[in-house]
Amino acid sequence: MAGSTFGKVLTMTTWGESHGAGIGVVVDGCPAGLSISEEYIQEMLDRRKPGGRDFATPRAEADRVKILSGVFEGKTTGTPISMMIENTSQHSGDYGNLATTYRPGHADYCFDAKYGLRDYRGGGRSSGRETAGRVAAGAIAARLLEEFGIRVMAYVSAVGPVACDPAHFNEEEIRRNPLCMPDADAAEKAAAYLKTLMEEQDSSGSEVTCIVTGVPAGLGEPVFDKLDARLGQAIFSIGAVKAVEIGDGKAVVESRGSTNNDSFIMKDGKVSKKTNHAGGILGGISDGTDILIRASFKPTPSIFREQETVSADGEEVKLSIRGRHDPVIGPRASVVVEAMTAFTIADLLLINRTCKL
Amino acid sequence: MAGSTFGKVLTMTTWGESHGAGIGVVVDGCPAGLSISEEYIQEMLDRRKPGGRDFATPRAEADRVKILSGVFEGKTTGTPISMMIENTSQHSGDYGNLATTYRPGHADYCFDAKYGLRDYRGGGRSSGRETAGRVAAGAIAARLLEEFGIRVMAYVSAVGPVACDPAHFNEEEIRRNPLCMPDADAAEKAAAYLKTLMEEQDSSGSEVTCIVTGVPAGLGEPVFDKLDARLGQAIFSIGAVKAVEIGDGKAVVESRGSTNNDSFIMKDGKVSKKTNHAGGILGGISDGTDILIRASFKPTPSIFREQETVSADGEEVKLSIRGRHDPVIGPRASVVVEAMTAFTIADLLLINRTCKL
Amino acid sequence: MAGSTFGKVLTMTTWGESHGAGIGVVVDGCPAGLSISEEYIQEMLDRRKPGGRDFATPRAEADRVKILSGVFEGKTTGTPISMMIENTSQHSGDYGNLATTYRPGHADYCFDAKYGLRDYRGGGRSSGRETAGRVAAGAIAARLLEEFGIRVMAYVSAVGPVACDPAHFNEEEIRRNPLCMPDADAAEKAAAYLKTLMEEQDSSGSEVTCIVTGVPAGLGEPVFDKLDARLGQAIFSIGAVKAVEIGDGKAVVESRGSTNNDSFIMKDGKVSKKTNHAGGILGGISDGTDILIRASFKPTPSIFREQETVSADGEEVKLSIRGRHDPVIGPRASVVVEAMTAFTIADLLLINRTCKL
Amino acid sequence: MAGSTFGKVLTMTTWGESHGAGIGVVVDGCPAGLSISEEYIQEMLDRRKPGGRDFATPRAEADRVKILSGVFEGKTTGTPISMMIENTSQHSGDYGNLATTYRPGHADYCFDAKYGLRDYRGGGRSSGRETAGRVAAGAIAARLLEEFGIRVMAYVSAVGPVACDPAHFNEEEIRRNPLCMPDADAAEKAAAYLKTLMEEQDSSGSEVTCIVTGVPAGLGEPVFDKLDARLGQAIFSIGAVKAVEIGDGKAVVESRGSTNNDSFIMKDGKVSKKTNHAGGILGGISDGTDILIRASFKPTPSIFREQETVSADGEEVKLSIRGRHDPVIGPRASVVVEAMTAFTIADLLLINRTCKL
Repeated sequence: MAGSTFGKVLTMTTWGESHGAGIGVVVDGCPAGLSISEEYIQEMLDRRKPGGRDFATPRAEADRVKILSGVFEGKTTGTPISMMIENTSQHSGDYGNLATTYRPGHADYCFDAKYGLRDYRGGGRSSGRETAGRVAAGAIAARLLEEFGIRVMAYVSAVGPVACDPAHFNEEEIRRNPLCMPDADAAEKAAAYLKTLMEEQDSSGSEVTCIVTGVPAGLGEPVFDKLDARLGQAIFSIGAVKAVEIGDGKAVVESRGSTNNDSFIMKDGKVSKKTNHAGGILGGISDGTDILIRASFKPTPSIFREQETVSADGEEVKLSIRGRHDPVIGPRASVVVEAMTAFTIADLLLINRTCKL
Repeated sequence: MAGSTFGKVLTMTTWGESHGAGIGVVVDGCPAGLSISEEYIQEMLDRRKPGGRDFATPRAEADRVKILSGVFEGKTTGTPISMMIENTSQHSGDYGNLATTYRPGHADYCFDAKYGLRDYRGGGRSSGRETAGRVAAGAIAARLLEEFGIRVMAYVSAVGPVACDPAHFNEEEIRRNPLCMPDADAAEKAAAYLKTLMEEQDSSGSEVTCIVTGVPAGLGEPVFDKLDARLGQAIFSIGAVKAVEIGDGKAVVESRGSTNNDSFIMKDGKVSKKTNHAGGILGGISDGTDILIRASFKPTPSIFREQETVSADGEEVKLSIRGRHDPVIGPRASVVVEAMTAFTIADLLLINRTCKL
Repeated sequence: MAGSTFGKVLTMTTWGESHGAGIGVVVDGCPAGLSISEEYIQEMLDRRKPGGRDFATPRAEADRVKILSGVFEGKTTGTPISMMIENTSQHSGDYGNLATTYRPGHADYCFDAKYGLRDYRGGGRSSGRETAGRVAAGAIAARLLEEFGIRVMAYVSAVGPVACDPAHFNEEEIRRNPLCMPDADAAEKAAAYLKTLMEEQDSSGSEVTCIVTGVPAGLGEPVFDKLDARLGQAIFSIGAVKAVEIGDGKAVVESRGSTNNDSFIMKDGKVSKKTNHAGGILGGISDGTDILIRASFKPTPSIFREQETVSADGEEVKLSIRGRHDPVIGPRASVVVEAMTAFTIADLLLINRTCKL
Repeated sequence: MAGSTFGKVLTMTTWGESHGAGIGVVVDGCPAGLSISEEYIQEMLDRRKPGGRDFATPRAEADRVKILSGVFEGKTTGTPISMMIENTSQHSGDYGNLATTYRPGHADYCFDAKYGLRDYRGGGRSSGRETAGRVAAGAIAARLLEEFGIRVMAYVSAVGPVACDPAHFNEEEIRRNPLCMPDADAAEKAAAYLKTLMEEQDSSGSEVTCIVTGVPAGLGEPVFDKLDARLGQAIFSIGAVKAVEIGDGKAVVESRGSTNNDSFIMKDGKVSKKTNHAGGILGGISDGTDILIRASFKPTPSIFREQETVSADGEEVKLSIRGRHDPVIGPRASVVVEAMTAFTIADLLLINRTCKL
């Protein structure tokens, strides 16, 4: 079934494999009259791009996005916006032995079990490269949110055991260090940790935090399209995510009602909250305070260390993965979290226009 | 917008408020020929029902489900199955003062901000009572999954700081103690903990674990309808959930690839895995091993302790909540987790029939 | 798959069989703050009700609609509106022989071929009775459209060879004669025609015309959700419809561009058209003039005359249908056309709120 | 809202304007393992292509389709199939004066009213060129249907007053004459008729008939996703269609039940029908006989004769259209009818896999 479309009023449909002609996305339902340019989208894409940072794969793709439709004289027309990024750096020989061997931690076996065949080149459809289309779509959503004073920001809050210290939070630091951490000190320690792991032919898990500011109260639909439910789908749809948290997240288990409840207060004549354990969402609807999301990413499954696995023929074999692989997923994935969050909020913002007479 | 429908091929549409005529659900897309009875559904509903257990609210509703359509001579006909549970125990005076005061931790303010009005009686649409419809729908899904050897089981794995010991896991214990914990010892300690909290007019967070066995490899669609993405939406759509984890969940942040990767092995002539850190899902598609899900529930926001809040008029006021409220959400919510998980898996099982020529 | 839900932002999900517990509908996505009452809905339902008119089946059901949720103190709350009409007049013995014989012109055989079983009592899900839920939903849509000055009116424009004369159009006549024709003279002739057919144990085809006034320019989405495409689905989803026309309809085949094009003119300072061959829709989007729809209904397939058919066992048999059957479908179906049209327009009206920045 | 996606399990999302970078479509949900090639798709596209025939516009586009994803080693992989056709023949100056003038019979005014701006070059999104993407998607659906012995064939059955004689039906003739008529004699008369109209700077309406053979009984979902309802949306979504008929269509109005009912008979041990007034669909579900569809196309609205209209400024003006325009829409649209029909049937065929246990 069609599982490549996300959103209800604002939708994105992504397509493309790692080693095909390209990667793309069709954004439908974007309101007419929004100023947008390839440069704006490219800027967000560049933050996802491999090759530019110490801990990202050295694949040097240009990754230039082209807008193919839906924008006329610099403004959206209300019709579908098709965007494409050509694949320019496929090394067709790179992954050849993977046709018949199932990589641990990857979807190779699952694809074969599901479809009876798979495009094994570079992970095919389940390659991280698929997310380039999402980021292009997310850039449009972010542009739309800007018009309403809503801003989405994601960063790496932990790499393995090295977590950022909230007291050292410095937003500008995020784009300054290769690990996208807002705490220079933590970034340095995390870099050292990763170097050790790389020497051991291993990889690390990581955590991405996402904050949305400026969201008005009222976004999200009761019951199944709750803001957190839609964000849950959005973030879990990013490969390698194994946990999603809103507000205090997992810590609520050990908390008490008297602590966890955020008292409502009046602030500048508006309803606000004294604390934000809820992460800006109550009963699935935004409450006007910051939305707080955390995503836990598993360690990169492609490690150079020899691993045990099985072949498509049902033989137990040893596998050594070659090629280009980041030792940690969070830094490049943080912009994907940002994109998926922006898209989800933008969709619910438009939907919210229909809720009252 | 219509946010009351869940699922794609198999759908449920829930309706109803806490204090209206009743609560119900329409299940559409259930295959024809499935044996189902009101008794089967009632049994699952009874596990969610308040009144039967020490730590659940003493509201004594009959909560009898009626099948109104879609079943003929004991079998589903392929047409929509409408089910209804009448509300029989509304005390209309109970919640009167809540018309004008926003309860901390509840959606009252958000509903007003969104819709400009709300049915304040008993929490209206955001009442936990809405989940009765989901459980009825989930029972049908569970019945369908039985035909394919798939079984969903949820239980409370932690109440506040008291966690079950996996070494003491005893499935039969789940339905034996009022906290639905599979570890009699933990259940006893948790009960003592809750009693203390209740004396302090407070409430506790909790964790629900859900295990799905018998799932064939291949369920879930790449990209946005990944099995974990759909489960993410399903579980986060349950009120009070603040974190969802798959497999090792949040622990992957501190893990390494060499540890986290599950080696594929051959077992009884089939592809299997040596470990299951992934929780049965790789690249969003089931890998044939057990699906493992954990949900963190915040403490019940309705506590009897006086709280600070604001009124609809924008006055800062004190609020004392009365009425009937569980001191912990997990025990009753565990069956909702089971229902939502069963429904999600059943939907993807049907969708999977269309993936190959 | 779930085919019982219609609409995108405003949805209805119908359920129920002719001889089950009842018939119902859940309307989701209706904006909050709309005044609505059971009486308003009942009035529209009464126009569909059998038993009140000479040419409708004498089944005397009360057909009382109950609103079960989503309305609080006379206003919609934005949450799903569940409505139910109990079945009170089932004669379980009426249709017994139809369990094993396929009625010509009915879906009996198709249901068996599709599902392997069917609820044969009274046509089950394919009974005209299913449309009661649609009319209840349509009444809410009509109420919503009133707020925006949009009005939907349907009537019978032809019964067999007897067509209304546009020159004799009298709106008040529609609810005065049992055939819902706006031309008293035509209604009389049609009645005589039907009496003759009934004596011959036969039935007649009919045509329903629907006019929507007050529609602003801009409704309908380019490409697949064109206003006429959505109306096409809506009207063809009514049983027995074999043709749907917009504006000049089938007559355009023999027309010329110079005749068929409607010249734009200025009228009262607004863009208007000199003629309306297009039926108010250009390129799938409303142009601000009246929407004109025509639906052709086949003759009632249940005729008392003996017919040739086959049994479920594959035997060729003779069939004599008994029971209660209208000799013409249009009069009762006209209100269903009105309901489906109103619902479609209301959905697109809400969707249109999201098209511009 | 997103109105550029069609289908439920098998979906297509089209994008592109007449004068942008290109036109494209993403087909999602196509089962894995289907053999498909660019050549197969190109062949269907070539039948839609302008320039090759006497009565089609002389715009000589290469219209070469490229498959960008979802096909690996000649077979579909189950992931989205992205296809693109570059625009190579835009004459940017052609349509300049249309920026400020509303062409009668076109959607120019409606787009402005809806979006507040429009891409006026070549009709933008409402250009017939958008249908190229549909045809590419339809070719994949047709390929899929072949695997199940289902075949879709459309042709022009009338041009203005010149209708084909069913007695002269010759399938091979369809691709032999420029008007795609299966009756050589009618084609000749229609050609003469069109020549006269062209001399008069006018255009003609036309009718397209579509026949689907080999459809098993059981396709289509009761109620809103009836086979005819889905076909109704599909065909009405093609620009310029003003009427859609199934089986006897509009003629049923004057028919009687005793004539219109098709008697079931046994044929070669299978249930069949003596006649096919129903056009292969009963109660919205296929009955195993041929599906018969007819679509009425309005005359080409772009005529060279001077017309009255208004400008975007609200001035009444005269308009003379220049450029390239077919004098009749049916011949090129017939392949679009074929594509939309094939796609609809393929979607319902896949959906039908989920209807029984």
